[in-house]
Amino acid sequence: MMEHSIFSEFLRMLVAVLLVARLGGAIAQRVGQPAVLGELVSGVIAGPSLFGWIDPQVQVLHVLAELGVLLLLFAIGMETNLGELIRVGGTSITVAVVGVFLPFVLGFGACRLLGLSGLQPVMAAATLTATSVGITARVLSDLGHLRSIEGQIILGAAIIDDVLGLLLLTIVEDVAQGQGVSAGMVVGATVRAVGFLVAATVVGRWIVPTIFRAVERIDLPGTRTTFALVLAFAMAWLADRSGSAMIIGAFAGGLLVASLPEAHEIGRGIAGIGHFLVPIFFVSVGASVDLSALSPVDPSSRFALLTGGVLIVVGILGKLAAGYAPFWFRGNRAIVGIGMIPRGEVGLIFAQIGLNSGIFDSGLFGAAALMVMVTTLIVPPTLKRLIAMDHSNSVEPREPEAIEDLVARS
Amino acid sequence: MMEHSIFSEFLRMLVAVLLVARLGGAIAQRVGQPAVLGELVSGVIAGPSLFGWIDPQVQVLHVLAELGVLLLLFAIGMETNLGELIRVGGTSITVAVVGVFLPFVLGFGACRLLGLSGLQPVMAAATLTATSVGITARVLSDLGHLRSIEGQIILGAAIIDDVLGLLLLTIVEDVAQGQGVSAGMVVGATVRAVGFLVAATVVGRWIVPTIFRAVERIDLPGTRTTFALVLAFAMAWLADRSGSAMIIGAFAGGLLVASLPEAHEIGRGIAGIGHFLVPIFFVSVGASVDLSALSPVDPSSRFALLTGGVLIVVGILGKLAAGYAPFWFRGNRAIVGIGMIPRGEVGLIFAQIGLNSGIFDSGLFGAAALMVMVTTLIVPPTLKRLIAMDHSNSVEPREPEAIEDLVARS
Repeated sequence: MMEHSIFSEFLRMLVAVLLVARLGGAIAQRVGQPAVLGELVSGVIAGPSLFGWIDPQVQVLHVLAELGVLLLLFAIGMETNLGELIRVGGTSITVAVVGVFLPFVLGFGACRLLGLSGLQPVMAAATLTATSVGITARVLSDLGHLRSIEGQIILGAAIIDDVLGLLLLTIVEDVAQGQGVSAGMVVGATVRAVGFLVAATVVGRWIVPTIFRAVERIDLPGTRTTFALVLAFAMAWLADRSGSAMIIGAFAGGLLVASLPEAHEIGRGIAGIGHFLVPIFFVSVGASVDLSALSPVDPSSRFALLTGGVLIVVGILGKLAAGYAPFWFRGNRAIVGIGMIPRGEVGLIFAQIGLNSGIFDSGLFGAAALMVMVTTLIVPPTLKRLIAMDHSNSVEPREPEAIEDLVARS
Repeated sequence: MMEHSIFSEFLRMLVAVLLVARLGGAIAQRVGQPAVLGELVSGVIAGPSLFGWIDPQVQVLHVLAELGVLLLLFAIGMETNLGELIRVGGTSITVAVVGVFLPFVLGFGACRLLGLSGLQPVMAAATLTATSVGITARVLSDLGHLRSIEGQIILGAAIIDDVLGLLLLTIVEDVAQGQGVSAGMVVGATVRAVGFLVAATVVGRWIVPTIFRAVERIDLPGTRTTFALVLAFAMAWLADRSGSAMIIGAFAGGLLVASLPEAHEIGRGIAGIGHFLVPIFFVSVGASVDLSALSPVDPSSRFALLTGGVLIVVGILGKLAAGYAPFWFRGNRAIVGIGMIPRGEVGLIFAQIGLNSGIFDSGLFGAAALMVMVTTLIVPPTLKRLIAMDHSNSVEPREPEAIEDLVARS
């Protein structure tokens, strides 16, 4: 019974993931940090870098983590004010475009100066481009800042950034496989990705309330939550099929549900399942950062550590500058810049492609992983301090709702 | 990105599973049947036998289904009165032993009469032995009969039956692989399986409250539910490692949590996640019944249909007789007998081993699958009628609690 022993082994790992996530979150909270920081750090500790209790490559764990981030984005969509998001759209686009362009150019230049050649500087620069919308949004909500104007700008920018990152990913993958890239392809992909979001939101505004009216006639507990899950997963699948990112589909699904009369009940149900799945995502991201190639004792890894340090500096400066790029914005631009810094799982996906395609050696992969870890881990405490210092902060404190429980502190 | 397209494909299937489960459950309820019947039937329809939307062999779906049945048994454990379960223990053991022995002997004899030879009669007889505790318990709760004395006897018998089934499974696997079986091995396995349950319950009564006292100091939403999940999964893993069945471990975990002061809150949290996972299990069981080998038009499958019919008759009579075996029991023995009939996923696991080991051809596998389907599907309506007719039924009607919502109608 091969199947069976795989399941048994998976159960052991799932128990480890749930335990370290909860304990890590509790410790982080105890020392005044957002819970997500504890989940990420405990993932690094329990992962292959150190104890090896958790292997994020295990397919089932990976799938649960992916379902978790879809639920997180769905919940964030439910918390988002679409009007506000559109109103700050220009600012978000500026932050996103500068925040992809600048780190790429700076990263490329720095890697050339370090003596990297061939496709290595391009690949290393690509890992610097995309912000992790999941981590950014979770940190913002951990700090109760998701609905502030800075929060909405960051959220919008991180989502646009994700579309840009996806396009870049397609290009980089083609280049890595030695294929050419045409401008027409890139434009086509952009149109499809953006078109999906617009079409889904327009059509969904009409269809989704009708579906939930029909669902009301089913008298089985958990039915509304189930249909919300179906919506989240179906939208993610549709987004993927139309060349957009899955998490954007899930986010759009959340936007659609937010205006329903049963939104509150749905939010509670999604939060309940999210408490189970979302921490799996953050622990997995932490565990994916395999730093075993970076031993300071080993002389061959000194260069990798140097490269990692350079990537960190460039990665931070590039995104910080992007936050200051919309010069017309009167809010706290430092918050926007810092909020865009975490690379999280998106950076790791790039680094993994670099490794799998043979462009990165293990040292360069370690450098990229180090950059991802540092940019992800410095943001929660920095943002917490910035927001505390920001007296212009106009968000009134409010009682946490069930849905915020998930987004905020799952 | 192979990984990625697998996840996309899985999302599509997950959406299908959640949708057909919910719609099937709603239709069943509309026509006055337990929701679980609708989930099973919609699984058969959406599975490989007919539409092929759902492939229960997909590993991730299988794991989610397994997690679902663990949560179900955990919830059932929370609903179970341990004192009552022990009080009717003698009756349960009698029902379990007769209900394994009789179907095996009758099945073996009937298969020999049909002309089957070699290991085929043994394997076919083995598929008849074990009751599916998940389906039995769910049907009982669908009908609000889980806490009746008959319900507790069935539950106890189904759990013992599962231990016996597991032993038989080990023996049959060894025989199928041409290995010998010693009496010492069988006794050893029995002692381990039973010993685990007793040890876990005794030690757990002391440790579990201590853990949940410590957990109270963590101020993150969903923490208690997470620790309940950890307990359910850890107990299942421990049970498996000690040679018992995973679902028995999860059931024991539920028993341990039931007496905690926060049991009600935990029940609600588990029910919320269960609404997502439990229907995946029942739809998967339905979808696993691949009847494609049984076409009445095809002459070669006539014998398979005949064999299936014989297995059905023998499988029903054997378990029904087991219900009447404890002659001293004054309650409704017909309810006990009928309640033991559904073979569900346990029968399918036997049939699958038969197929994989080459002992079953596709016809015989189809016959076993037909037996599983019929024994599983006839029970909900029959039991519903029997319980309605049973005026000696002493269970007072009660308001459903959140935890009962899951067990009863998830």
